[in-house]
Amino acid sequence: MSESTRPALAGFQPERVEDPTLINLQDYEFLAAERLTPGALAYYTGGANDERTVADNRAAFGRRRIVPRVLRDVSHVDPSVEILGRRWPWPIWIAPTAFHKLAHPDGEVATARAAAARGITMVLSTSASTDLAEVAAVGGPRWFQVYLLADPGARLAHVERAVAAGYEALVLTVDLPRVGRRERDIRVGFTVPPEVSVPNIAAAAGLPLADGLNVAFADHMTWDDVTWLAGFGLPVIVKGILHPDDARLAIEHGASAVVVSNHGGRQLDAAIASLDALPAVVEAVDRRVAVLMDGGVRRGTDALIALALGATAVGIGRPVLWGLAVNGEAGVGHVLDLLTAELELAMALAGAPSLTDLGAEYVI
Amino acid sequence: MSESTRPALAGFQPERVEDPTLINLQDYEFLAAERLTPGALAYYTGGANDERTVADNRAAFGRRRIVPRVLRDVSHVDPSVEILGRRWPWPIWIAPTAFHKLAHPDGEVATARAAAARGITMVLSTSASTDLAEVAAVGGPRWFQVYLLADPGARLAHVERAVAAGYEALVLTVDLPRVGRRERDIRVGFTVPPEVSVPNIAAAAGLPLADGLNVAFADHMTWDDVTWLAGFGLPVIVKGILHPDDARLAIEHGASAVVVSNHGGRQLDAAIASLDALPAVVEAVDRRVAVLMDGGVRRGTDALIALALGATAVGIGRPVLWGLAVNGEAGVGHVLDLLTAELELAMALAGAPSLTDLGAEYVI
Amino acid sequence: MSESTRPALAGFQPERVEDPTLINLQDYEFLAAERLTPGALAYYTGGANDERTVADNRAAFGRRRIVPRVLRDVSHVDPSVEILGRRWPWPIWIAPTAFHKLAHPDGEVATARAAAARGITMVLSTSASTDLAEVAAVGGPRWFQVYLLADPGARLAHVERAVAAGYEALVLTVDLPRVGRRERDIRVGFTVPPEVSVPNIAAAAGLPLADGLNVAFADHMTWDDVTWLAGFGLPVIVKGILHPDDARLAIEHGASAVVVSNHGGRQLDAAIASLDALPAVVEAVDRRVAVLMDGGVRRGTDALIALALGATAVGIGRPVLWGLAVNGEAGVGHVLDLLTAELELAMALAGAPSLTDLGAEYVI
Amino acid sequence: MSESTRPALAGFQPERVEDPTLINLQDYEFLAAERLTPGALAYYTGGANDERTVADNRAAFGRRRIVPRVLRDVSHVDPSVEILGRRWPWPIWIAPTAFHKLAHPDGEVATARAAAARGITMVLSTSASTDLAEVAAVGGPRWFQVYLLADPGARLAHVERAVAAGYEALVLTVDLPRVGRRERDIRVGFTVPPEVSVPNIAAAAGLPLADGLNVAFADHMTWDDVTWLAGFGLPVIVKGILHPDDARLAIEHGASAVVVSNHGGRQLDAAIASLDALPAVVEAVDRRVAVLMDGGVRRGTDALIALALGATAVGIGRPVLWGLAVNGEAGVGHVLDLLTAELELAMALAGAPSLTDLGAEYVI
Repeated sequence: MSESTRPALAGFQPERVEDPTLINLQDYEFLAAERLTPGALAYYTGGANDERTVADNRAAFGRRRIVPRVLRDVSHVDPSVEILGRRWPWPIWIAPTAFHKLAHPDGEVATARAAAARGITMVLSTSASTDLAEVAAVGGPRWFQVYLLADPGARLAHVERAVAAGYEALVLTVDLPRVGRRERDIRVGFTVPPEVSVPNIAAAAGLPLADGLNVAFADHMTWDDVTWLAGFGLPVIVKGILHPDDARLAIEHGASAVVVSNHGGRQLDAAIASLDALPAVVEAVDRRVAVLMDGGVRRGTDALIALALGATAVGIGRPVLWGLAVNGEAGVGHVLDLLTAELELAMALAGAPSLTDLGAEYVI
Repeated sequence: MSESTRPALAGFQPERVEDPTLINLQDYEFLAAERLTPGALAYYTGGANDERTVADNRAAFGRRRIVPRVLRDVSHVDPSVEILGRRWPWPIWIAPTAFHKLAHPDGEVATARAAAARGITMVLSTSASTDLAEVAAVGGPRWFQVYLLADPGARLAHVERAVAAGYEALVLTVDLPRVGRRERDIRVGFTVPPEVSVPNIAAAAGLPLADGLNVAFADHMTWDDVTWLAGFGLPVIVKGILHPDDARLAIEHGASAVVVSNHGGRQLDAAIASLDALPAVVEAVDRRVAVLMDGGVRRGTDALIALALGATAVGIGRPVLWGLAVNGEAGVGHVLDLLTAELELAMALAGAPSLTDLGAEYVI
Repeated sequence: MSESTRPALAGFQPERVEDPTLINLQDYEFLAAERLTPGALAYYTGGANDERTVADNRAAFGRRRIVPRVLRDVSHVDPSVEILGRRWPWPIWIAPTAFHKLAHPDGEVATARAAAARGITMVLSTSASTDLAEVAAVGGPRWFQVYLLADPGARLAHVERAVAAGYEALVLTVDLPRVGRRERDIRVGFTVPPEVSVPNIAAAAGLPLADGLNVAFADHMTWDDVTWLAGFGLPVIVKGILHPDDARLAIEHGASAVVVSNHGGRQLDAAIASLDALPAVVEAVDRRVAVLMDGGVRRGTDALIALALGATAVGIGRPVLWGLAVNGEAGVGHVLDLLTAELELAMALAGAPSLTDLGAEYVI
Repeated sequence: MSESTRPALAGFQPERVEDPTLINLQDYEFLAAERLTPGALAYYTGGANDERTVADNRAAFGRRRIVPRVLRDVSHVDPSVEILGRRWPWPIWIAPTAFHKLAHPDGEVATARAAAARGITMVLSTSASTDLAEVAAVGGPRWFQVYLLADPGARLAHVERAVAAGYEALVLTVDLPRVGRRERDIRVGFTVPPEVSVPNIAAAAGLPLADGLNVAFADHMTWDDVTWLAGFGLPVIVKGILHPDDARLAIEHGASAVVVSNHGGRQLDAAIASLDALPAVVEAVDRRVAVLMDGGVRRGTDALIALALGATAVGIGRPVLWGLAVNGEAGVGHVLDLLTAELELAMALAGAPSLTDLGAEYVI
């Protein structure tokens, strides 16, 4: 049972919390920055070049304001949404990020457990530091993020392993034909430490675990690859769309959903903020498929703004890593709980008892 | 007799003041911050989450400029306005805020005395730390702010007590279906100190004084509640309107006035600034009822801008508390005198000898 | 002979200057701040309330950019302009400011000498600390700024003295029906020191010199006063216009020119920046009379922007006081030379050999 | 062979670099500031007056965002462009700047070698500190920047020397009818040190080497001079165009290309940023001639933005000097390699395998 049926308290005393220094996602970011190695911090925090897009992803939310409605019955708030035939309890998903073991020894398994306990879909990265089967064994809703490997055999094996492990959808990342230049990594001389590997890549390539990091990704990727991926029988979600025409093309090539994303500002610096790109994509998609987004969501009100502007659900990437770094599975769980509670409260205060009540007229 | 009939001095020597460090409302804010306990300061100052809306309430005034008129006869300035059948000497009212005894032992009585001495309407909060009858005994124009209590009997008793005590209007706050998350309170571990209570809630609920703080508010509130409240025979003012359609609905459900407000940024963070929301509400209301506003008014020129954009009167909340904290009744009085003198001067300098001279063409 | 006929140097070595710390008007401001008493500095620097308009007068220039033209023959630049039948060598005038003896013992005489030497029109303030006849004796083009004194006899005598002393035009300041609240003055407890007086006011009122500071100004001023002032046979310039309708009214009431001005931000805080108000006034005036402006001009490019937007000439107030404070007549002269040289260079670099070449298409 | 055919790596380890403190152009700026004399630093860094335009040249890029396309085949990126009949490997050129020997004893020869090794066109300045024949002897594509000397004979000789030395085009700078006032130079008392001269000017004027610095430039320059210059049989490029009408006039007078430029903010302060001026010039030119630009390009994404908005190629001025100051020819080469690599990556990540794929729809 969600908190939405709890009667409102008089509210004269503030909420009691375990730790008053960890009450929002930014707190987790600050604390994680102390806990992580300089290399891991640079890798997680950094974006491409001047990190204009990293900053703009956040700033884009600051440029919007919500016009709430009042005196609607919000004693019960329903933040659930149906996506690809499954009802999600929250319009929130965990965006794929690499190497969770850089943040915590429990790695992706900890993240998956926290997500599964809340019915939240985790998108496991090709660059995960945990075998996809091990993560699948946690249970819970899960999608698999696909980078196309350069070698055709490895490429095929990679996708087949994900399908075999029961991942429910394939998320094709299309904004990494090459790797962006993340200057923080260069400054600190970041290297993946020996205890962290990419077992899924290694397995697909038939190589020893330690060699996965050297496997090349395809530098040649076109819309035909979407069609090819759709041939595996799972829904294909195209992640990294910023132009409305690309959203149209994605649907034409069989995508079941798109993700408006600029890879957290890690690829093309000066790329448009995800939130700024969202409305045109929503209009182009015209409700034919789900439009997810990620980039800069740190508050329930951020989520509400994106949802009102037409996002079907919003993903969070880095905050999950901060939670993981601070406190493993419990940290991820707390990050998710903070964000979902904020969203639920924001819906109530905005006078929107369900997501279908939200619309672009809520945002200016 | 107001200062408006005083002939202008040559003005070569600045005004003589008692204390040159207390010459505007911001001065009171700075000094109050030193006088209050950390908990009271957090409670009064804080807003929801990142306090974007708190800041934007102020910034919205900074984004406007006044285009004054000249050579109009402003030797006599009349800042009075008629609201709900009573002529107010100033288009200024005291917005409801909780627990005045947190700021000063004299609490709401001190505030009421300062207001009454100037003919300014005070809106007493449901969460006042003084019994409503004791405040009423001060005399002076007074409205009562209503939170609906969860228990039907208590809810009825609460309103009946206010009616019986001679409050002239009921101000229904509609932006608190739940309490916003005020992170400052959580950070400092604010608790209402034992010497501060909410006697009106306790009395309505038939509980000992100390138990009032635990009485639940209704989490289910709709437009029917406006109709219900209007049944008590007093004018009902709906406070917390930001969307023009809600202003229309308020009038349809019997409201005698609306207050454009975001609860001082304490409820839905990222909500639109009150001033930014004002013009659309004014247009929707189309002079059928009075449109009050609060949020960010700290200067006479702020008041003038809001009035020119169609506000019938502007409320101040926190500045009253700063005055109270600094110097009790005299502090509140000085805060009011500073603001009214600034407004009167601003009207003269803008070439508007009366409020009806002001219009949207004064503001860009 | 102006510098405009000097062939351009190769420019590989920068200009040789006497003092490299005094090469623009801002340098003078910084140095003057060290030289003045705290009271005089507050009085000169300060604006009303939060000084939003003071800041915005400057910022308004920063919001514009010039689109220069090239390959026009600018070997000879003619910055002269005809105003009220006289050809000015520069489209620059000295705005009226009070008490030049606060800045330097030579007071307005020093200012007048520097202006006269350059053929620049000085507008002497009613609140000058020097007798208007003494200033007139310096020679040079001069206008007189008029505040209406409260006493009718003194009012008449005041204007008659100016007319008798050969001032060529009367500048009626209309934005001071009351004195703005300049908080800096109050903070520092500014008082006019005993050695500084307002001899013109005292003389008009028939009072001893020291009593001039206590003479009241009219608090009742209307368009009829413009008509009255025009009756003295001199051109009347209405100073303090920000609304285009007031510019139209000024012309209808006999004004020979208007000055777009907000009194340097000293009267109505939050008033529109002079530069922002300029275009609508220019449009309303439609070339019937000259449109002067003041407020925020500190650079030749500022002047060029205002001129391109339709100002006939731009006034400077505070910079003259900085020059006076730093170095008396020579300081004022240097300030004027710096500004005129900057303007002449800006015209050359913008491809506008004369002021008639400038137009709104130069500015975005 | 360019790097564009290198298969993308997995990218889990950041690029290995020789010096992690020199990985972008800003790093070179910071280090050069330590290496240069105060005078040289002031001369290179400074702009006119308040340096508004210097700052705005950069800020204009920050105001734009790129909307990238995805799933286009970018395995091979072709950044080449044809300009005046020659195919450039990159749409990048070296803008003319004076006195390279101020930065490094090897001066313009070092710059020319770095440029020639990469097939990048260097525009040698009239104010070069190296004889144009010595620079020509380096080989590589080269244009010559022309200031018109005041003396007609010297003017002719100057151009003839450049033609004779095999420069392929003449770049006429039209935004310097007079020298802008660069206040930094005045503050630090910059003088060209004795070991630095302007041999090309001296030779044209038939003067000893040391006297070149005193040769006057023409202060009278019109469109006829473009026609005159075109008579030498080389393509003439008009540099310093900001207004679209001037671009049209340039073409009418025989220009083979124009350069949108404000002289790096060193001439008319408050002039429009080059990038802001670009679109209107591109529209006016309507593909009749090439439209180059310079001003504020520091990143590959800056270049991409300008190219998408219609620039045929972008020039860099100061960054070349930073490279020269830090490490002579190798420093210039590294600066060029960093920028070209960034551009090539930006094209790949923007989904534009060739420059003809770029268009204004990429930029918002």
